[in-house]
Amino acid sequence: MAGLGHRTAVLDLSRGEMGTRGTAADRARESAEAARILRVSWRGALDLPDGHIENTRPNRLKVAAVIRMLRPRVLILPYWKGRHPDHYTASRLGYEAAFLAGLKKLDLTDTAPNLEVCARAEPEAAGLHSAIARPHRPFKILYASLYYDVRPTFVVDITPHFESRFQSLMAYRSQYHDQSEGAGLFPLQAEIRARTEAMARFYGLLAGVTYAEPFVQKEVGLLDDLTAIPVRSI
Amino acid sequence: MAGLGHRTAVLDLSRGEMGTRGTAADRARESAEAARILRVSWRGALDLPDGHIENTRPNRLKVAAVIRMLRPRVLILPYWKGRHPDHYTASRLGYEAAFLAGLKKLDLTDTAPNLEVCARAEPEAAGLHSAIARPHRPFKILYASLYYDVRPTFVVDITPHFESRFQSLMAYRSQYHDQSEGAGLFPLQAEIRARTEAMARFYGLLAGVTYAEPFVQKEVGLLDDLTAIPVRSI
Amino acid sequence: MAGLGHRTAVLDLSRGEMGTRGTAADRARESAEAARILRVSWRGALDLPDGHIENTRPNRLKVAAVIRMLRPRVLILPYWKGRHPDHYTASRLGYEAAFLAGLKKLDLTDTAPNLEVCARAEPEAAGLHSAIARPHRPFKILYASLYYDVRPTFVVDITPHFESRFQSLMAYRSQYHDQSEGAGLFPLQAEIRARTEAMARFYGLLAGVTYAEPFVQKEVGLLDDLTAIPVRSI
Amino acid sequence: MAGLGHRTAVLDLSRGEMGTRGTAADRARESAEAARILRVSWRGALDLPDGHIENTRPNRLKVAAVIRMLRPRVLILPYWKGRHPDHYTASRLGYEAAFLAGLKKLDLTDTAPNLEVCARAEPEAAGLHSAIARPHRPFKILYASLYYDVRPTFVVDITPHFESRFQSLMAYRSQYHDQSEGAGLFPLQAEIRARTEAMARFYGLLAGVTYAEPFVQKEVGLLDDLTAIPVRSI
Amino acid sequence: MAGLGHRTAVLDLSRGEMGTRGTAADRARESAEAARILRVSWRGALDLPDGHIENTRPNRLKVAAVIRMLRPRVLILPYWKGRHPDHYTASRLGYEAAFLAGLKKLDLTDTAPNLEVCARAEPEAAGLHSAIARPHRPFKILYASLYYDVRPTFVVDITPHFESRFQSLMAYRSQYHDQSEGAGLFPLQAEIRARTEAMARFYGLLAGVTYAEPFVQKEVGLLDDLTAIPVRSI
Amino acid sequence: MAGLGHRTAVLDLSRGEMGTRGTAADRARESAEAARILRVSWRGALDLPDGHIENTRPNRLKVAAVIRMLRPRVLILPYWKGRHPDHYTASRLGYEAAFLAGLKKLDLTDTAPNLEVCARAEPEAAGLHSAIARPHRPFKILYASLYYDVRPTFVVDITPHFESRFQSLMAYRSQYHDQSEGAGLFPLQAEIRARTEAMARFYGLLAGVTYAEPFVQKEVGLLDDLTAIPVRSI
Repeated sequence: MAGLGHRTAVLDLSRGEMGTRGTAADRARESAEAARILRVSWRGALDLPDGHIENTRPNRLKVAAVIRMLRPRVLILPYWKGRHPDHYTASRLGYEAAFLAGLKKLDLTDTAPNLEVCARAEPEAAGLHSAIARPHRPFKILYASLYYDVRPTFVVDITPHFESRFQSLMAYRSQYHDQSEGAGLFPLQAEIRARTEAMARFYGLLAGVTYAEPFVQKEVGLLDDLTAIPVRSI
Repeated sequence: MAGLGHRTAVLDLSRGEMGTRGTAADRARESAEAARILRVSWRGALDLPDGHIENTRPNRLKVAAVIRMLRPRVLILPYWKGRHPDHYTASRLGYEAAFLAGLKKLDLTDTAPNLEVCARAEPEAAGLHSAIARPHRPFKILYASLYYDVRPTFVVDITPHFESRFQSLMAYRSQYHDQSEGAGLFPLQAEIRARTEAMARFYGLLAGVTYAEPFVQKEVGLLDDLTAIPVRSI
Repeated sequence: MAGLGHRTAVLDLSRGEMGTRGTAADRARESAEAARILRVSWRGALDLPDGHIENTRPNRLKVAAVIRMLRPRVLILPYWKGRHPDHYTASRLGYEAAFLAGLKKLDLTDTAPNLEVCARAEPEAAGLHSAIARPHRPFKILYASLYYDVRPTFVVDITPHFESRFQSLMAYRSQYHDQSEGAGLFPLQAEIRARTEAMARFYGLLAGVTYAEPFVQKEVGLLDDLTAIPVRSI
Repeated sequence: MAGLGHRTAVLDLSRGEMGTRGTAADRARESAEAARILRVSWRGALDLPDGHIENTRPNRLKVAAVIRMLRPRVLILPYWKGRHPDHYTASRLGYEAAFLAGLKKLDLTDTAPNLEVCARAEPEAAGLHSAIARPHRPFKILYASLYYDVRPTFVVDITPHFESRFQSLMAYRSQYHDQSEGAGLFPLQAEIRARTEAMARFYGLLAGVTYAEPFVQKEVGLLDDLTAIPVRSI
Repeated sequence: MAGLGHRTAVLDLSRGEMGTRGTAADRARESAEAARILRVSWRGALDLPDGHIENTRPNRLKVAAVIRMLRPRVLILPYWKGRHPDHYTASRLGYEAAFLAGLKKLDLTDTAPNLEVCARAEPEAAGLHSAIARPHRPFKILYASLYYDVRPTFVVDITPHFESRFQSLMAYRSQYHDQSEGAGLFPLQAEIRARTEAMARFYGLLAGVTYAEPFVQKEVGLLDDLTAIPVRSI
Repeated sequence: MAGLGHRTAVLDLSRGEMGTRGTAADRARESAEAARILRVSWRGALDLPDGHIENTRPNRLKVAAVIRMLRPRVLILPYWKGRHPDHYTASRLGYEAAFLAGLKKLDLTDTAPNLEVCARAEPEAAGLHSAIARPHRPFKILYASLYYDVRPTFVVDITPHFESRFQSLMAYRSQYHDQSEGAGLFPLQAEIRARTEAMARFYGLLAGVTYAEPFVQKEVGLLDDLTAIPVRSI
């Protein structure tokens, strides 16, 4: 999306302090590096407790405030099922925050989310906080389904970006570099490369491209020109 | 699609001779009139027996020959379930004919499908028959699902075309004009108008447009720009 | 149901104070008017915060107390998925409240739900509060699915009631009457009429009636006489 | 259904000549006995080859002719999936025959299905054959799903009829009575009793009755009175 | 599982104090008796409020502490849908507790779950509490689906254990022995026997054994030898 | 399976004469080479017309005769949906042939399937034809789902066999070796390697092994020891 000239942003809900490997400080440094590689316009982390993300009113208000600050047209959430409770809870939390962010009568000016910003495209930073007063609801909500065994609604061709995507993952050195801590639990880096490639290729094969990333969309599609639909049927 | 400048064609498998109302001759006249209203480039009818459409090898070869003649990029079939056996059988028959049409070693030059052509855009007519010798497989196969209670993969906005679409239906005077034959079995024309409109509006509502037509697609989608996806999520 | 002589009741969980259009006072007036049009025997509103309905124990006890007061045989909840978080949360909240209401050992006499009652059929009002002490569980729980794109288990023919149903919607003047506030966000009234009609007709078409309302039921059905099943198959 | 005063009929497509146990003659005698126990008004067997039931045009016409003879309001077919190819093929064959039987222009007077009738309620026999000339389409088509692991749409309470239903099964002595032929392949009679009872009880439990029989219906339901819906939800 | 020589344990989340029949003391006595019959190695009850089980952080920590104490390889949870809110909530609560129990950085040594232990295999009791300090995550999580109308992933043959399983149920005399309290609401004991047997036989029939117990597993299976797969296909 | 010491066999229904690349003679040579690499005990090809496989009675009898000859315990069929009509038709044809093969009264001794055998383990060849007189039904029918986008019931770890599996594919030189015929339509060999590996790894990831092959099974599973179930849940 950055390559197409769009503003992009990443919001981490927690700071990863409960991970078996690495500290919150390690994660902050790594997140900034990953953001740089992915060319995101903004990246920040809230302070929700890692391993204990809950869909409570205070948490929804914090996320709603960030949504008003960033005013995205498209919000990508984790798929609503998964292995990690924080991930599937984040999905519902994010949806409900997006709903609240659009309520004209919801005053969020007193919500001061504790944000640690690690990447920021300067010209946009100025108006961020004043935006909290103005309602905003994303037009589209999509669900990233790579880590769940579900048929995607569509995939996005990431062939030209596969290497930088992999490097952004490898930026999390505390998680993915070979080390003794957690050996046995964590796969070796060469294995991670092979797995990442296999997943991207698998979803690419569904659509006739080399590497792709899968998404789930709840709404039906809307198309203009039937002759422009990609992906061969037969 | 005609409005976008694409060649379009309709293939009727039978000539409607078993219908409670109207004769095959009535149907032929009405089909030509409907084709004119829909601005289709070509319309023809095979001679498969109405009410007894079967997915047999001879029938597949006939349809494959027409596919080679017309060389469509997109093939729209009836949804594969339905109330009328001819409709769901046509769906499988059409799919398998499309497969066969693409086999380089399948010689169809001796297949002379008995076609009654009722609409024809002159410049294209010349090469039609010689095309039977050259393999062709549609790139995309879609399923029209308006008459089956299934969630569509996508809809197409037909708001500007709703009236002409309805007129093309009304062109089948033997079927839809108020008359004594089959009264009780067949709804009145005013009722048909109301139903047609309700269905189109219902599918329109799913996508935020006034009138829409639903389709099912078996493949996953492939998208470039997430910010360009239509249909509001929330 | 009122037309069949049954007692009917509506419980609003909140007072609509977060709506873009209208105040809680507007809504109260409109709810009373809608209740009158629908001939409901009782209508009241709890004080749960609009936009922040949560399935918490105190909320479950409040709703359970109202269930004991009203003692319904059938409880209609919103479908358990939807666009508005309050709606799908109300579905689970209502189900669990119905469960609790039936527990003999659950003492709800100290639960004094803050109810604003806007419609009341006199003879029944007397015993309402004393009923809180006596357990009651609805026999049947159904899910109203009109606003979610899901196949209903069954529909109810509302042809004779379609106009009054529409008028009960229009009673919410703050929401549906043409006005400048929220113009752009809200459809015009003529459009609402067309949409309401299209939805009711669509579900009617599934069952061979003019207008119908869709419901989802979790249990299997139980039938006596196979010859009495309505809705033509073929 | 017989108990409710309805005419009932059973059409066997073949004469069971390929069964491991018993001959076609054994089966004919047993079918008549089972029909007597079930109090069916009419029972006959076509001569389709056992183990080779096919959905061909001649077979569809034979079944359509019988449908016109018997003119049922409700047609019960086997569920469309199953272990035995004859059973699932009969499901599609029966559906398509029902469609054809309703075509006004389909002349079936020359179709003389080879029927072996083993049960017949006299007063109705007279007009049977002349009825072949008059179109008839069943109003309702249901699918008997007892032998397939699928959730039924509804069940029918057969508690008062469970014993006679079991006796009608036991009438097939060649199949179910303990014997040396096929021992090992076929369960003992006591085991059959236990299984039949367990299945009927299982489906009964879904609906709060003792014994029930499961059916699948493709259409949505249509209900009048929500307070009259049976089967407790909670 | 006990018969195969495995350690087994049961954790009750509440003490059943809200049941229509019986007191918490009755239930404790009955649980101990049932545990004895099932030969479980350990059984204990937490003090979560009966009828109000919630998936909150304190509850997750309590259950996580017990998981660390008992260190199971396999965790069996209730299926995630059901009639009783405590049951489906326990399913999610148990899953998330299992996740937390495996977090190396989660210190649970101050979590002192209020456990009432009613069955204990002596040699294992010693190390139980010190185990709370060491992370543990079950390898496998399975869902017991007997009380929900869902197709199981697999069943377990319980034919040799059916009687003791039934006796362990009957150990809950306050619930299942015929009595006046709750008569009308509760089935008679003979009926319970018949139902329990029908359910077990029904699931047995799916797999070709006499009595079986159904489970749902979310992961795909992994098999070595295709010739060793049980359950006949045809 | 060969590695576990089991007899294995492959039956090709046609001889590939319609393929864009290669002749039937090429294919026969390649099939024999692939069979050698896979160490199959027997491989033969029937003479059904390539591109026109149909589920007709003569075809079912031919396949049933081969099933009686080879007497497999496990029959692996293509998944019942797919892109190539021959593949999904073979699935149903194979199932129904397996059913027929078990009918004691079905005499197949006059069925002389035109088999071209390209691999044969000598000691077994002797009794093959006389076996046609004796009924046989496979115990288990499984569906190979690698080429269809469906969630498998289980996967088989093929890590030690991945290379020979790939070599057996490459034995089809006419199909997979780089060449001018069909260039553009057919992927290059390096691409095939990458795709084959990605698919096997993807299914491996579902089960925690490196390379796996997916299968669908219609029946529920049957398990003895819950602690022996592989594939980590969390």
